[in-house]
Amino acid sequence: MASPEIETLTQALSRLPGLGPRSARRAVLHLLKKREGAMEPLLRALEAVNDRLVTCHVCGNVDTIDPCGICADPRRDARALCVVEDVSDLWALDKSRLFPGRFHVLGGRLSALEGIRPEDLTIDALVARLEPGGVDEVVLAMNATLEGQTTAHYLAERLERFPIRLTQLAHGVPVGGELDYLDEGTLAQALRARRPVG
Amino acid sequence: MASPEIETLTQALSRLPGLGPRSARRAVLHLLKKREGAMEPLLRALEAVNDRLVTCHVCGNVDTIDPCGICADPRRDARALCVVEDVSDLWALDKSRLFPGRFHVLGGRLSALEGIRPEDLTIDALVARLEPGGVDEVVLAMNATLEGQTTAHYLAERLERFPIRLTQLAHGVPVGGELDYLDEGTLAQALRARRPVG
Repeated sequence: MASPEIETLTQALSRLPGLGPRSARRAVLHLLKKREGAMEPLLRALEAVNDRLVTCHVCGNVDTIDPCGICADPRRDARALCVVEDVSDLWALDKSRLFPGRFHVLGGRLSALEGIRPEDLTIDALVARLEPGGVDEVVLAMNATLEGQTTAHYLAERLERFPIRLTQLAHGVPVGGELDYLDEGTLAQALRARRPVG
Repeated sequence: MASPEIETLTQALSRLPGLGPRSARRAVLHLLKKREGAMEPLLRALEAVNDRLVTCHVCGNVDTIDPCGICADPRRDARALCVVEDVSDLWALDKSRLFPGRFHVLGGRLSALEGIRPEDLTIDALVARLEPGGVDEVVLAMNATLEGQTTAHYLAERLERFPIRLTQLAHGVPVGGELDYLDEGTLAQALRARRPVG
């Protein structure tokens, strides 16, 4: 029988998306066999992320500083705001370096099925960011899924009263697809051809 | 762009068997979203394994003590030795609680393809364990793969000169199968019907 330490680690790993109990065991064995080559680098990397990373209180990005590097960067255009569902979407868009503005991470999408309501997302914080004025354009960069588009529609209604240009990513994002899985070329095209809502 | 800490963690996770770069990113995002529920338990579990677990110098098992709990247990029959390829095989067999003796972990299997030779496994240590006498039976519990059976044949030759009963797991282990994937019933049958080599 494996020791309790191993069982605990196997359980912790098996809760990660993409790993089941069996593959988690394989992963633990791999780590035990390659202590210097695999276990210690993983441990150090996890410690670094856990110790150093914080969530930006302005936009919801994850970075070593708060406000994050994007919010703190004076070269970023503060008049354009790109709203995304998750941090991974922010990374995917920012990697393409095509959007010169700042971001706002909702922390998910509206979902009747999962019981995720507007107050579970950072929508009030987004409205508060727009209140003082100074933002000319808000890009709604939700996933092209049913829930993503529902969220975009809801946001369009909530932001209607602001004197801003409200745009969304152009068709180019394949229907049913998720931003995080797209190549940069498709993302670039979708961003370039973004169009006004409604 | 994600911070370097996140990139490093993603890379470390993507080297685990069963995880690629994409699923490693998903796993990192999951950890960032659930810090208390997922990241901290994983970190603590990994620390515990890394700090507390050692490889038993006698049999090659992984445990918090050296010699390991099995080697140190006086109720275990020191006259019977079960030789396995990997620690996972030891766990699989020990979980069934059908083998009352001790174990010897080879640390792999002979493989021309992967360039694994007898001196890469703990075969000399196994021979050294048998030298002083006191062992009546050695069970060769290799996987029923080509390489596992090659290893068993090689071991049978190396151990020929000892006055021991050399047995192997009965057919019952499906051809091409690996011990770690079997249910306990099949393992039990294979162990009960073990037969002399040659």
